Amino acid sequence: MTESVHGVQAEGIDTDDVTIAYIGGGSREWAPKLFRDLALSDLSGEVRLHDIDHESAERNAEFGNWVQNRDEVQADWEYEAVADRDEALAGADVVILSTQYNPAETFVHDLDIPKDHGIYGAVAATIGPGGIFRAMRTIPVYREFAASIREQCPDAWVFNFTNPVHFVTRALYDEYPDINAVGFCHEVLWTRHHLTKIVEEELGEEAERSDISVNVKGINHFTWIEEARYKGRDLWPLLEDLVDTDRANREFTPEDLEDDSPFTDKQQVTWELFRRFGVLPAAGDRHIVEYATSFLVGGKEGLNRWGVKRTTSDYRAKHWNPAESDQTTNVEAWMDGDREFELYHSNEIFDDMVAALGGEDTMVANVNMPNEGQVTDIEDGAVVETNAVIREGEIKPTTAGGFPRPVRSMINGHVDTIEAIIEASRTGDVDEAFAGFLLDQQVRTLQTEEAHEMFAELVAAEEEYLQDWDLEGSSVLAEADAYDG
Amino acid sequence: MTESVHGVQAEGIDTDDVTIAYIGGGSREWAPKLFRDLALSDLSGEVRLHDIDHESAERNAEFGNWVQNRDEVQADWEYEAVADRDEALAGADVVILSTQYNPAETFVHDLDIPKDHGIYGAVAATIGPGGIFRAMRTIPVYREFAASIREQCPDAWVFNFTNPVHFVTRALYDEYPDINAVGFCHEVLWTRHHLTKIVEEELGEEAERSDISVNVKGINHFTWIEEARYKGRDLWPLLEDLVDTDRANREFTPEDLEDDSPFTDKQQVTWELFRRFGVLPAAGDRHIVEYATSFLVGGKEGLNRWGVKRTTSDYRAKHWNPAESDQTTNVEAWMDGDREFELYHSNEIFDDMVAALGGEDTMVANVNMPNEGQVTDIEDGAVVETNAVIREGEIKPTTAGGFPRPVRSMINGHVDTIEAIIEASRTGDVDEAFAGFLLDQQVRTLQTEEAHEMFAELVAAEEEYLQDWDLEGSSVLAEADAYDG
Amino acid sequence: MTESVHGVQAEGIDTDDVTIAYIGGGSREWAPKLFRDLALSDLSGEVRLHDIDHESAERNAEFGNWVQNRDEVQADWEYEAVADRDEALAGADVVILSTQYNPAETFVHDLDIPKDHGIYGAVAATIGPGGIFRAMRTIPVYREFAASIREQCPDAWVFNFTNPVHFVTRALYDEYPDINAVGFCHEVLWTRHHLTKIVEEELGEEAERSDISVNVKGINHFTWIEEARYKGRDLWPLLEDLVDTDRANREFTPEDLEDDSPFTDKQQVTWELFRRFGVLPAAGDRHIVEYATSFLVGGKEGLNRWGVKRTTSDYRAKHWNPAESDQTTNVEAWMDGDREFELYHSNEIFDDMVAALGGEDTMVANVNMPNEGQVTDIEDGAVVETNAVIREGEIKPTTAGGFPRPVRSMINGHVDTIEAIIEASRTGDVDEAFAGFLLDQQVRTLQTEEAHEMFAELVAAEEEYLQDWDLEGSSVLAEADAYDG
Amino acid sequence: MTESVHGVQAEGIDTDDVTIAYIGGGSREWAPKLFRDLALSDLSGEVRLHDIDHESAERNAEFGNWVQNRDEVQADWEYEAVADRDEALAGADVVILSTQYNPAETFVHDLDIPKDHGIYGAVAATIGPGGIFRAMRTIPVYREFAASIREQCPDAWVFNFTNPVHFVTRALYDEYPDINAVGFCHEVLWTRHHLTKIVEEELGEEAERSDISVNVKGINHFTWIEEARYKGRDLWPLLEDLVDTDRANREFTPEDLEDDSPFTDKQQVTWELFRRFGVLPAAGDRHIVEYATSFLVGGKEGLNRWGVKRTTSDYRAKHWNPAESDQTTNVEAWMDGDREFELYHSNEIFDDMVAALGGEDTMVANVNMPNEGQVTDIEDGAVVETNAVIREGEIKPTTAGGFPRPVRSMINGHVDTIEAIIEASRTGDVDEAFAGFLLDQQVRTLQTEEAHEMFAELVAAEEEYLQDWDLEGSSVLAEADAYDG
Repeated sequence: MTESVHGVQAEGIDTDDVTIAYIGGGSREWAPKLFRDLALSDLSGEVRLHDIDHESAERNAEFGNWVQNRDEVQADWEYEAVADRDEALAGADVVILSTQYNPAETFVHDLDIPKDHGIYGAVAATIGPGGIFRAMRTIPVYREFAASIREQCPDAWVFNFTNPVHFVTRALYDEYPDINAVGFCHEVLWTRHHLTKIVEEELGEEAERSDISVNVKGINHFTWIEEARYKGRDLWPLLEDLVDTDRANREFTPEDLEDDSPFTDKQQVTWELFRRFGVLPAAGDRHIVEYATSFLVGGKEGLNRWGVKRTTSDYRAKHWNPAESDQTTNVEAWMDGDREFELYHSNEIFDDMVAALGGEDTMVANVNMPNEGQVTDIEDGAVVETNAVIREGEIKPTTAGGFPRPVRSMINGHVDTIEAIIEASRTGDVDEAFAGFLLDQQVRTLQTEEAHEMFAELVAAEEEYLQDWDLEGSSVLAEADAYDG
Repeated sequence: MTESVHGVQAEGIDTDDVTIAYIGGGSREWAPKLFRDLALSDLSGEVRLHDIDHESAERNAEFGNWVQNRDEVQADWEYEAVADRDEALAGADVVILSTQYNPAETFVHDLDIPKDHGIYGAVAATIGPGGIFRAMRTIPVYREFAASIREQCPDAWVFNFTNPVHFVTRALYDEYPDINAVGFCHEVLWTRHHLTKIVEEELGEEAERSDISVNVKGINHFTWIEEARYKGRDLWPLLEDLVDTDRANREFTPEDLEDDSPFTDKQQVTWELFRRFGVLPAAGDRHIVEYATSFLVGGKEGLNRWGVKRTTSDYRAKHWNPAESDQTTNVEAWMDGDREFELYHSNEIFDDMVAALGGEDTMVANVNMPNEGQVTDIEDGAVVETNAVIREGEIKPTTAGGFPRPVRSMINGHVDTIEAIIEASRTGDVDEAFAGFLLDQQVRTLQTEEAHEMFAELVAAEEEYLQDWDLEGSSVLAEADAYDG
Repeated sequence: MTESVHGVQAEGIDTDDVTIAYIGGGSREWAPKLFRDLALSDLSGEVRLHDIDHESAERNAEFGNWVQNRDEVQADWEYEAVADRDEALAGADVVILSTQYNPAETFVHDLDIPKDHGIYGAVAATIGPGGIFRAMRTIPVYREFAASIREQCPDAWVFNFTNPVHFVTRALYDEYPDINAVGFCHEVLWTRHHLTKIVEEELGEEAERSDISVNVKGINHFTWIEEARYKGRDLWPLLEDLVDTDRANREFTPEDLEDDSPFTDKQQVTWELFRRFGVLPAAGDRHIVEYATSFLVGGKEGLNRWGVKRTTSDYRAKHWNPAESDQTTNVEAWMDGDREFELYHSNEIFDDMVAALGGEDTMVANVNMPNEGQVTDIEDGAVVETNAVIREGEIKPTTAGGFPRPVRSMINGHVDTIEAIIEASRTGDVDEAFAGFLLDQQVRTLQTEEAHEMFAELVAAEEEYLQDWDLEGSSVLAEADAYDG
Repeated sequence: MTESVHGVQAEGIDTDDVTIAYIGGGSREWAPKLFRDLALSDLSGEVRLHDIDHESAERNAEFGNWVQNRDEVQADWEYEAVADRDEALAGADVVILSTQYNPAETFVHDLDIPKDHGIYGAVAATIGPGGIFRAMRTIPVYREFAASIREQCPDAWVFNFTNPVHFVTRALYDEYPDINAVGFCHEVLWTRHHLTKIVEEELGEEAERSDISVNVKGINHFTWIEEARYKGRDLWPLLEDLVDTDRANREFTPEDLEDDSPFTDKQQVTWELFRRFGVLPAAGDRHIVEYATSFLVGGKEGLNRWGVKRTTSDYRAKHWNPAESDQTTNVEAWMDGDREFELYHSNEIFDDMVAALGGEDTMVANVNMPNEGQVTDIEDGAVVETNAVIREGEIKPTTAGGFPRPVRSMINGHVDTIEAIIEASRTGDVDEAFAGFLLDQQVRTLQTEEAHEMFAELVAAEEEYLQDWDLEGSSVLAEADAYDG
């Protein structure tokens, strides 16, 4: 085949013999879910777990094989921890990318340093000063991954789950333009889930997520819907009625939210944006506010008024350590019999997608891929999120159309930041990265000199993770007080 | 929903109660197939047959209901002939458009007049001087259809089968931009069928059309493939080998073809274009040569050398009259018991598509819709053919990428002709249409004055069918000898 | 001629008999300069002065004719005050548009209301909340002007000097696409003047503005230079050296600026942007900060640090009354002999441009016209500022290329605001205008609800001037406390 | 300066000390004119004449210096023949490129071989099979020139006069994107001259070429005008009247033309195209028919009917030899006193352009430069012809707008051929070049196999001049009978 279409062509997958390379396979969160889903899937094969923390990969391999020994298992899988990345990748059909640095050394700075300068990001993980620094740490690593994939398994299907999904997926393509990579994220699934709630509450019908179809478009965590159907029925008139009801007009104080989880979505930002611009955001409010940045103004009170609660750096630091977190999964407890193990499917769609690539049921899912027409008026090559059809041997995005001008304008502002950082990362040019940083909508609420200092402080705090950048050659850093090389 | 995306939005279809309005429902060719497919489908409902020749619609209604009385029938359908077009359309879920003028008064001139000037089109039905005149006759009628649909069933799914599919589908959108219209054609299905033959002969495997997936793109009858897979396996290396074998290097003389049907596809044009440009044409050679016009040079001998045989005007005139044609179906013979009736499915996918729109299995099929990103470097709004995903409540084209420059250049030349004629049809400006006519690649092989005379002769011969055009106001016609108003 | 090229075609001007219609001809600032320049020009003809304040037009007509009676006069001009606008325009060769509302009832609110919400714009006249409201007041009036010009003098050359130049020039084209309108502004002339100072101080040569040529591009008041030459010699290496010197690294306190005029340009914003983005802003810092909005953060202190001083609402209110202002000209004093009159040329280029259109020396000047290729990556039709060649019968912009991504991103953000307001103005839709208002980079520093209230307060304060907008139909206003209809 | 704008930046020229490198400086046609023009110009300096035929360069140097000794000379110039190309270029301010191969070994084949296949090109020098082969011979040489210029005089102004101007100028930019190259041609000057004739004959006024201004756009030799003014007065209504008169409706037989020069322009093609498409071609009919190829159909008779006469290969072969040609100039006769020498200006504008670049009068002239916005709907980077403003240190094209669709379609077809050949020339890929060759509108009138043979015959005939192409690696040539490697 010729090579002009992105992320699409590649050999089919033999569903009876799938080789999966899982980079970041020591994960305590998603891996245990995946293993159970695979055990209940129509697929069989082998999973190679690779992690910088090799012990965690070994633990997961043990757990994966343990799962395979449960009675209810329907599929045949073997798990192995592989210390060498290239070995793990060699000849793989599918590559999973899902990694994260120790948040205590990285993420906490992304949250705290901007906060000291008055930037009160809700998540600080995908855009804004913190998101940009996460990108700056992550992009060089993913360039390496892409280069290894080109060598070891050039036709593999690459599923990227690592944030910031738009930056990271873009970096994979920038390094290896013929990669078959797709970025995935749960947020749109959640939006469809929210719509089932609306159907149930307003229409009195029992709905499932699969009954809801949407035309989604945008960039990851800043996606929008301009069509939503429940079993083929147009939900738009219903949404337009609801925007004037109490459901869409709630206000909150910090006290109201005191006991709430930051992950509970009140959707008041969603409704406000729908009211102003006529299309519906399709991600949790905590993500949307990072991109529609006026909602961040006024710090805690400003943010809370919309029902959005910031995840703190304390929380993030703890989340890493399974002993202290409830987002991670203690697989040892299961294996040791300290906790009862149940085998059920997670409602994730990874195994369905691999099966579709192997010739099972054709399906539609939202994916992050370089724009080559799916979205109007965003530059070609920028990684956008839209629906795609997944079937034997291909993942092809569908054309999703354009945006109302104000929405397009906000999206393009962020695309400019993302592309500027990607361009800077080609040579590791810190000054060029700083020019992109200055574009960020959160950063622009600071005076240019304060933005300069904040940038230098972030570099100083995370220097160890920024060694692929030319820190020494930077005049931006040389001028700054906060960084002394 | 907002309205920025084409042909996509609309209410779902209730598969137990589908109302189909069939304009051109007196057809002797496709209608009898359709009725049998519906009888074996998962759908039930009502079909309203409308035809200018009302008697033929009545005959088909009778036949449709007769089919429903066969034993093997699995679905519940009622057929009715409706004399008033608006009544037929009122509230329809699905509209089928499939009409044709009496070829003895129209098509024969499309074939004979250009031939007198040395233009030896193989089909003369979708491009070239004959195709343009078919378009000029048809576009005004389809503007009327679109206007009626806007009034009677604005959200209906409109399936257009009428040629020239690109001109006609474009006219529907030009008249009613929010129409949910899709143009369909069999050629790509045939290409996939040909690929199954290659798989069988070269790989020794038994293949079905559904095992072959392709990334198709272009304009109708001038579509191209840059990926082809058999059960997920890349067929490209095989095709690249075959191009050097005898299969792809055959020559023919007029004598060789004497007894062949013009509908037998030797595929030598297909291979030659693949050899030169690296992508594979995805339509029968007889259609392709109308667009890659050097194959037409040299008249009968030139065309035959590639194994392509022209359909004659005699053949076309006869084809209209069921008594003399074997392409039409004598349903009376079945009903009268003069011929044994068998109920089997035709391998067409119309009923599958309607079922998918109603919530059954998601599927991918090639469709003709306005370009809004599916194809790179062809203007927005031009009707292009690509794959689309069809599922509950939507038909969304997938992004298909671009073309090698020479292929793109040929396509764009034809797009310019098509768009020029569409623009001229807005006001019925004959001189503007003539400027578009002069662009046509077949017409350009004539001196400009001969093209002028040929144009005037065609108008003179088909004047009765061109009454929506401003013939009187045309200075091109006034200047011409061949037309005297 | 065909009509596909903007603002370019039209009949030539007879330099011996030019008819100028001057809308806003009662001006006390520019008109007296113009009359003297005309008196010293190579042109002769008639000037029709039209003003809502007819008396001021009469006073200026008297003054114009008085000037013509001075000894040193070289050209033959007659001045007449014309009360009826259409009569003033009828058959004019050249139209000057230069109007302003009473600032005490308008401009002061543009300055004070945003300031109450913490937005400390330096000028508040062309972008930001104040600039947008000026646009909302002005656009409907200029739509009327465009409609009158279409009727009275469709081929006239229209010179627009009214701010916001980008909004207003865009409105003229939106209303009458074939208008030959050009927006003019002094800022780029000042930039070239500043470059002469640099040449004198750094190169020790005596330079004149006409020795400096630049490649300018952007939108009015946010224009950029990527080439600058002194007598053909590249100034870029010099500028790159200077950015590291004291000249380009000065800081200011509010005290430092206490006695300075707000119109004195310290150029520290210019240098900082050049340092970060590699291209040189080509407007006064006080205008640039309205578009590169981080310089506005921190109120007075933040702004003053860069040497920029805000013009106050008090100043603006006074400026209207000649008795209290020194920017306006007391022509009565001259005519009464209370002040000595000197006839000299102002260094403006209006008369040179008219002469060039009439066949005198071909020249290059910066102009604001709809983008049709002069600037890359800004949407077609948006009014951009670039150089143009002016010669007999034409004003044609030159191609100026593109921008570094961060600069382009900032410009496009403002283009989106401008276009959104223009689109809203077509129907007077206030809610659509508010969506555009929310896009503004200054407004985005407020929480969305505060932006909402500020918008309503501005409407309430300037309601009298916003009667062409559908205030009653607005749900944005209905929801707001600050506006009670 | 940054480098994003083409052919524009560079140091100024000192008009008292201009260094010109003239590649192809042994010319017998244009060089003698140039020397006289320089002698009468406002410029002084040195001309380095370089030619493969060094003797001819020496003869011209001698003649140049001889001219300088005439009494009437107003400027100070020295001429020198330089055998080494790099030495000639070193530090030059201006480079003239004007070369041609021996037509007896090249051009004659471009004319005769296609003619044998029924392609009756009028000139065969810039497009069509002959033009493409001229391009294939010339592009590699001009890539070398561009590389030398990058080394020897990177900022020089490069004036390319060599045909095919669009191919050759494009090749210069493809090799060295920052080159300051401009392609020049006389055709538009002739069109303006023709318009002076119309003004004189129809309006009874004495006009000069400089009184006529036009908005020109297209590709070289296929340029179009959509505005024409005489002293600022719109000529369009006059042209629209004339198209119906005898002037625009003449027919010719071969006999009528028997004694005419092929260089006499009857303009009947021009009028016919104006009639059909509403814009006026701006090149001689003999060039236009090579691009609007239906005028070539029917061989001699077809072409002659429009008053166009082909230049024969005999003529071209002779033209090379001064003894037999009257287009070349016998400078020896002047120097020897055998022929009286007169010093007058040629009406060429080369010296005016160099003077403008050096700071003399700003002027407008038509130039060929890469599209970066000057022309709408032609791809960026393709070399287009439009007006440009020329002033101290810059040549900047003006924005010229778009085309009626049919004209744009014809132009884009040729742009595709040109770009395909340029792309093929990057690696010398003959098969890729053949794919571009097949696109050519003249070639498309042949059956694909005949086109194949013609291509191979042309390669065989001109093989010596095609050594930079990978002839051996070509499967197109390997398949062909006419070429045996």
